[in-house]
Amino acid sequence: MPDSHPSAVTEPIPADSVGLITPEVAHFDTPLALACGKVLPAYDLVYETYGTLNAQRNNAVLICHALSGHHHAAGYHSLEDPKPGWWDAHIGPGKSIDTNRFFVVSLNNLGGCHGSTGPVSHNPETGRQWGPDFPMVTVSDWVNSQVRLADYLGIERFAAAVGGSLGGMQVMQWTTAYPERIANAVVIAATPRLSAQNIAFNEVARQAIRSDPEFHDGWYAEHDTVPRRGLKLARMVGHITYLSEDAMGTKFGRDLRTNDLNFGYEVEFQVESYLRYQGDTFSNSFDANTYLLMTKALDYFDPAAIHGGDLARALAPAQCPFLVVSFTTDWRFPPPRSRELVDAMVSAGKPVSYVNIDSPHGHDAFLLPEARYQAIFSGYMSRVARDLGIREAR
Amino acid sequence: MPDSHPSAVTEPIPADSVGLITPEVAHFDTPLALACGKVLPAYDLVYETYGTLNAQRNNAVLICHALSGHHHAAGYHSLEDPKPGWWDAHIGPGKSIDTNRFFVVSLNNLGGCHGSTGPVSHNPETGRQWGPDFPMVTVSDWVNSQVRLADYLGIERFAAAVGGSLGGMQVMQWTTAYPERIANAVVIAATPRLSAQNIAFNEVARQAIRSDPEFHDGWYAEHDTVPRRGLKLARMVGHITYLSEDAMGTKFGRDLRTNDLNFGYEVEFQVESYLRYQGDTFSNSFDANTYLLMTKALDYFDPAAIHGGDLARALAPAQCPFLVVSFTTDWRFPPPRSRELVDAMVSAGKPVSYVNIDSPHGHDAFLLPEARYQAIFSGYMSRVARDLGIREAR
Repeated sequence: MPDSHPSAVTEPIPADSVGLITPEVAHFDTPLALACGKVLPAYDLVYETYGTLNAQRNNAVLICHALSGHHHAAGYHSLEDPKPGWWDAHIGPGKSIDTNRFFVVSLNNLGGCHGSTGPVSHNPETGRQWGPDFPMVTVSDWVNSQVRLADYLGIERFAAAVGGSLGGMQVMQWTTAYPERIANAVVIAATPRLSAQNIAFNEVARQAIRSDPEFHDGWYAEHDTVPRRGLKLARMVGHITYLSEDAMGTKFGRDLRTNDLNFGYEVEFQVESYLRYQGDTFSNSFDANTYLLMTKALDYFDPAAIHGGDLARALAPAQCPFLVVSFTTDWRFPPPRSRELVDAMVSAGKPVSYVNIDSPHGHDAFLLPEARYQAIFSGYMSRVARDLGIREAR
Repeated sequence: MPDSHPSAVTEPIPADSVGLITPEVAHFDTPLALACGKVLPAYDLVYETYGTLNAQRNNAVLICHALSGHHHAAGYHSLEDPKPGWWDAHIGPGKSIDTNRFFVVSLNNLGGCHGSTGPVSHNPETGRQWGPDFPMVTVSDWVNSQVRLADYLGIERFAAAVGGSLGGMQVMQWTTAYPERIANAVVIAATPRLSAQNIAFNEVARQAIRSDPEFHDGWYAEHDTVPRRGLKLARMVGHITYLSEDAMGTKFGRDLRTNDLNFGYEVEFQVESYLRYQGDTFSNSFDANTYLLMTKALDYFDPAAIHGGDLARALAPAQCPFLVVSFTTDWRFPPPRSRELVDAMVSAGKPVSYVNIDSPHGHDAFLLPEARYQAIFSGYMSRVARDLGIREAR
């Protein structure tokens, strides 16, 4: 963690923040067999925790991250941080995932580029970066690695596993692969399988990266370069799918950057400026091989496939109650996908609460605070705490 | 037109086809002042005609093409042509635009890459290709150039101007800029202005092309190359927006190309294979500078802008009846956009028939034959013929 320079602080850390957080690293030496058939001999997982594990060790909540997420879900890494972790709206004292009650664990998944073993890590077998040699990882591989992190932290059973989007898929996988190790499952803005359109958008992103001449078959680091153009395009197209058409319209409309059209290819509309900025920022901070892996993990997830498409059968092993949340204007994983999941849960005889939240913010709504979303999320988590006899720490 | 080799014919030309068609070229020497402020000193327009102009010269129908369209809307260029023109489903003897009644004119717009003056044409002022020097053209410029084609062909007034998507925008422009020169307007799967999301997708396509190292600021021809990667990506992302999510799901679902996942980046899902094929085909046949221009023409179109956003006021000059058609699963220009147009027409006191066609095919539905669409389209055009006293030629 960088030194703190209190003189640079412009605003104090809010009272409902988990405050300053230092990531930790867990090292695992037991080889991990992956779905692709390869074996990862050893690996690190970087993670953060918020709140305190109680004496009964029954108040742990696992946070599973989405496509471009990481372990830094709440709080600040330093007093200079311009913004907190990606789910700070929902994790903290008094928030939906109340750190006065829960011990929250948030990790960067295998294959990530924020500290866990992945394409940017050193491959001990070759002495070079893993790069494109890093094996393909799936949602089930991630969950298997998360179980080991739970063992490492002495958590036999999570009070809840919680995740949005690709994170929700990991939660689904937990319920069927390790039903005895989670007491509750919260699946937000997710889907039991990608549609052809979802895969198509991922494929455009991958082609953008892989056709960038700076990609060098994934060995860009050894060529001292980064496939920035490809990453930027991938993020731009992704970003369009995260926002609702209405939210984009409200935010930008057809507003021009300057007063007049320039009849050229410089930025003319505000939405162009916004997208280019998002793309540039991402291309300077995210690893291309990791992005490729993560999109593939999304594409592959389909728990019903080995049951002839019968999702209810796939969910049969689950033992816990579910909360499923969707958002009205989410067109990436729209409400009918969540309803499909809920229908299968009901068919399989599982207890499930389902809420479709009215929000203008599209898929991104799962990250944002919204009164009804917060009320339902915190209400559900309070029930989780009550059922497990978890008391407030202060 | 290439020589015909009847021996290569595998199937005879259908009876309801306009048959073998030879494109023609009209040359214009009067300078054309463009919306961007530049002047095009002279230009060619390539066009095709189907049917016969009657003695009263009142049976002409103008076809306006969409983003990647051209003049070849119906019939075959040779007996070896594997497929007919892009709107052959709706133009021909006995079809919606019945060539036994109407004289159909279909042109390639200025800035195109199929024979009309555009970026791939010779620039007499510099002695090199126009390339990126070709001036930006707008929907209103196109309509101004189409008026000259009408003069050239001796057509004082079209029985109807007809277009889908970007073609529908040209029809809107005709109704307000030259109200006395069209008797009817058919606007299909269009919108009175692009949304922020529409502009965002266009911007991704443009960035894909412009960031391709083979683009060379638009001078790729002089570098003996083509920005194929960029064009491919642009077409892939465009193609996703032309199909409905359901149509993509029905057509491809999550079907794999082979039996097993390969856990790599080769094609795994059928939808990936389809998109790559579409992208490759397009990148070998379409000009990048033209694609950039055409997407900009889409972005710029907004007839209400100079009326403070009041579309009804923008439509006030129109004098003809309208047919407006949208398709239920079109998410590129969805039905609410057509309803917005219809509402403004009604407010402006214009006669308008509006039909929302139930179709699974998304935006592409406007190109396809569908029973209700055909019934309405041909019914409307029959009324047009009846009102103008147009008789069948045979």
